[in-house]
Amino acid sequence: MSTKYKSLKEECYEANMELPALDLVVYTFGNVSAVDRSAGVFAIKPSGVPYDDLRWQDIVIVDLDNNVIEGNMRPSSDTKTHAYLYTEWEHIGGISHTHATYSVAWAQAQRDIPIFGTTHADHLTTDIPCAPPMSDELIAGNYEHMTGQQILDCFSDKGISYEEVEMVLLGNHGPFTWGKNAAKAVYNSKVLEELAKMAYLTLQINPAAPRLKDALIKKHYERKHGKNAYYGQE
Amino acid sequence: MSTKYKSLKEECYEANMELPALDLVVYTFGNVSAVDRSAGVFAIKPSGVPYDDLRWQDIVIVDLDNNVIEGNMRPSSDTKTHAYLYTEWEHIGGISHTHATYSVAWAQAQRDIPIFGTTHADHLTTDIPCAPPMSDELIAGNYEHMTGQQILDCFSDKGISYEEVEMVLLGNHGPFTWGKNAAKAVYNSKVLEELAKMAYLTLQINPAAPRLKDALIKKHYERKHGKNAYYGQE
Amino acid sequence: MSTKYKSLKEECYEANMELPALDLVVYTFGNVSAVDRSAGVFAIKPSGVPYDDLRWQDIVIVDLDNNVIEGNMRPSSDTKTHAYLYTEWEHIGGISHTHATYSVAWAQAQRDIPIFGTTHADHLTTDIPCAPPMSDELIAGNYEHMTGQQILDCFSDKGISYEEVEMVLLGNHGPFTWGKNAAKAVYNSKVLEELAKMAYLTLQINPAAPRLKDALIKKHYERKHGKNAYYGQE
Amino acid sequence: MSTKYKSLKEECYEANMELPALDLVVYTFGNVSAVDRSAGVFAIKPSGVPYDDLRWQDIVIVDLDNNVIEGNMRPSSDTKTHAYLYTEWEHIGGISHTHATYSVAWAQAQRDIPIFGTTHADHLTTDIPCAPPMSDELIAGNYEHMTGQQILDCFSDKGISYEEVEMVLLGNHGPFTWGKNAAKAVYNSKVLEELAKMAYLTLQINPAAPRLKDALIKKHYERKHGKNAYYGQE
Repeated sequence: MSTKYKSLKEECYEANMELPALDLVVYTFGNVSAVDRSAGVFAIKPSGVPYDDLRWQDIVIVDLDNNVIEGNMRPSSDTKTHAYLYTEWEHIGGISHTHATYSVAWAQAQRDIPIFGTTHADHLTTDIPCAPPMSDELIAGNYEHMTGQQILDCFSDKGISYEEVEMVLLGNHGPFTWGKNAAKAVYNSKVLEELAKMAYLTLQINPAAPRLKDALIKKHYERKHGKNAYYGQE
Repeated sequence: MSTKYKSLKEECYEANMELPALDLVVYTFGNVSAVDRSAGVFAIKPSGVPYDDLRWQDIVIVDLDNNVIEGNMRPSSDTKTHAYLYTEWEHIGGISHTHATYSVAWAQAQRDIPIFGTTHADHLTTDIPCAPPMSDELIAGNYEHMTGQQILDCFSDKGISYEEVEMVLLGNHGPFTWGKNAAKAVYNSKVLEELAKMAYLTLQINPAAPRLKDALIKKHYERKHGKNAYYGQE
Repeated sequence: MSTKYKSLKEECYEANMELPALDLVVYTFGNVSAVDRSAGVFAIKPSGVPYDDLRWQDIVIVDLDNNVIEGNMRPSSDTKTHAYLYTEWEHIGGISHTHATYSVAWAQAQRDIPIFGTTHADHLTTDIPCAPPMSDELIAGNYEHMTGQQILDCFSDKGISYEEVEMVLLGNHGPFTWGKNAAKAVYNSKVLEELAKMAYLTLQINPAAPRLKDALIKKHYERKHGKNAYYGQE
Repeated sequence: MSTKYKSLKEECYEANMELPALDLVVYTFGNVSAVDRSAGVFAIKPSGVPYDDLRWQDIVIVDLDNNVIEGNMRPSSDTKTHAYLYTEWEHIGGISHTHATYSVAWAQAQRDIPIFGTTHADHLTTDIPCAPPMSDELIAGNYEHMTGQQILDCFSDKGISYEEVEMVLLGNHGPFTWGKNAAKAVYNSKVLEELAKMAYLTLQINPAAPRLKDALIKKHYERKHGKNAYYGQE
């Protein structure tokens, strides 16, 4: 297969294959995309194809207006949500969507995940937002497009930034995560699932568990992401 | 082994072997069957044989009156339930029965599984029904035959159709699922177990979690199963 | 290694190795024994040896008075409990002891596991008994010997038989199971762990979940163990 | 690579690699160190390196004043906590830090883990202490150094000894464990995670579950660690 999008498709393929490897999906319950900003296109999983059968050649190339540019298969049914986020958020390179168990449970419970500890603060300094379900009017319209709008409205209402908070729960639905590339988006899906499980257990053990104190939130985030960060090798 | 039922036995064998691979059974706690409508027979797992020892040659062929047509082993003790459902429901091709943990827990709790999210709505538009336990009179009679009747009564009482709702919980017992073939029946067993776990966690996080709103139920089901479905590759 | 107990040691070794394979133990948290009634001895795991290092040659042969008959290693610290049960219960051939998670949780909660469903009734017709913790006096004495007495007292108080109920929880401690041979004892350890998890989840979903009705208890047990049993290949 | 610290680095590397093998970490969420008392240095995981990529050559050698003695990579961001504990506690040889799920949940709930059973008593005779979160003043200062102080204050306040209690939870953060060497420290991380899960389930089944009685605490600990211990092969 000769294609100028080979490396983009491969990046997308490898990130998608991480989902079952990390126990984040069964069957076809997820999709990951990777964007090429200079070409104005993104690569995304084809719809309804089991991970066991997926090959890099099956990945579909779509432009930001949702036109299929290359590929014989229909792209993920969530494609318009991906396109919307890429259009609105210029600094992201990849998006991941799963139906991972604990993340979905919080989304179905329609609750933000409270920041209870430093595992959470190592990644973001706020509760993980849960967007309220869409209005009936929007559901009846361009649903997957409006799902992107639903995420943006949530971030706007809460006054948080997509560059600082790389994950969201959609009420009644499940998680979307993103990052500088597709691999980071999938990493965030796994981190979210771990945080969702830890927070669930924390509330079972102590329903009055306090949120992490501000000084610790700041300290942990700064040591990993601040100007004088000293976590990691850079 | 020369048999005209080889492909039917193989379909049944492969579907049965998916149960341990998907973590839906331990030991011998499950059975799957596949029907051949034109021959008027179905293939089913032999009773009490561990999955590690099972070979396709061990699968038993039974007719819809529960007579063994081919096979040296005794068929599953649940055979009459399978026969009853194949007789009453002409559009199903396979049936799966497990004692998967979360599905059994809801069955033992004797509660329908509420439709809390889109993972559920992608597969069915109603709560997953839990049939009330059988009366003592029926238990004392032709038990496994009456188990089939118990399922039909439940669907009739709730006004739901076996073609739209491909799964049921038997109160105090466990799940039965079905589909166009044995593989789809097993797929539904796994989906049910995931939905059962997600719903359990949802209620732990928010005991007042609302059911999914009607507009979203309709939207998700339609995009996967409706006339203008756009999920999957055809 | 020349020994007349080779096959007994191998049976014991293989049953012990099932414990980690079935996710019932970590490190050295368990032990299985197998008895040879004609020789008046039993084979048991050596104390504190990790499963990864265990060889069949390490298994220790002990008589019913707790004397080591063959073997260079010290037998399990629970050996006297095994010896006591073999002495008192002439129809058992193997004993298994684990610290499996859900079984231990019920033991620590000091509650019998209610019979909530047919998975349970397929194996026994009563709640799974939890023996109350030992008195301080007995603990200070011959502790592991008295652990055997603790089990017998529990069965006597509840009016149940070791031949019908092949498992017990020791309050604050954990499960012991037994059976016609060591493999069956381990099978019962796994079944108990599954029942413990299902019952835990059942109560979380419905704290008022009813016990299984008597007619169903009887029906399921009879079809597997009764005079006219029709489960399995007999 | 020629280094006089090869065996120390290898001990540290192997102990670190046990963390993902025992399901105690995902990604880079943990670190283990091993000390060489005669050389006055310890070996520790480099910061932010995924376990899949880690080689023994990457392990960093640090002295007790936190100076890097050998290694091209930055040591774990928790290095000062390790150094502090090695300096204060002369009889420990290894330290392990994870973000294991159930351990973190108790730390986030800010509760000591009650001693509910003999699995716990086989390892320590007290509740597992949870240190209260640090004051804002200390957080703003030399954070990782003060984390060591936080642990010592907790042990001092509770009147317990690091030689008898080889594990602690840091409120809002997670577990630290230690032992005579790095392998034992990791063993204690796994034991703590198991005890955390068992205690969580115990409270779910019986919120009024009693602590283990003193006579049993003493008996189980003595048989494994007392003067006349008869557990294991020593």
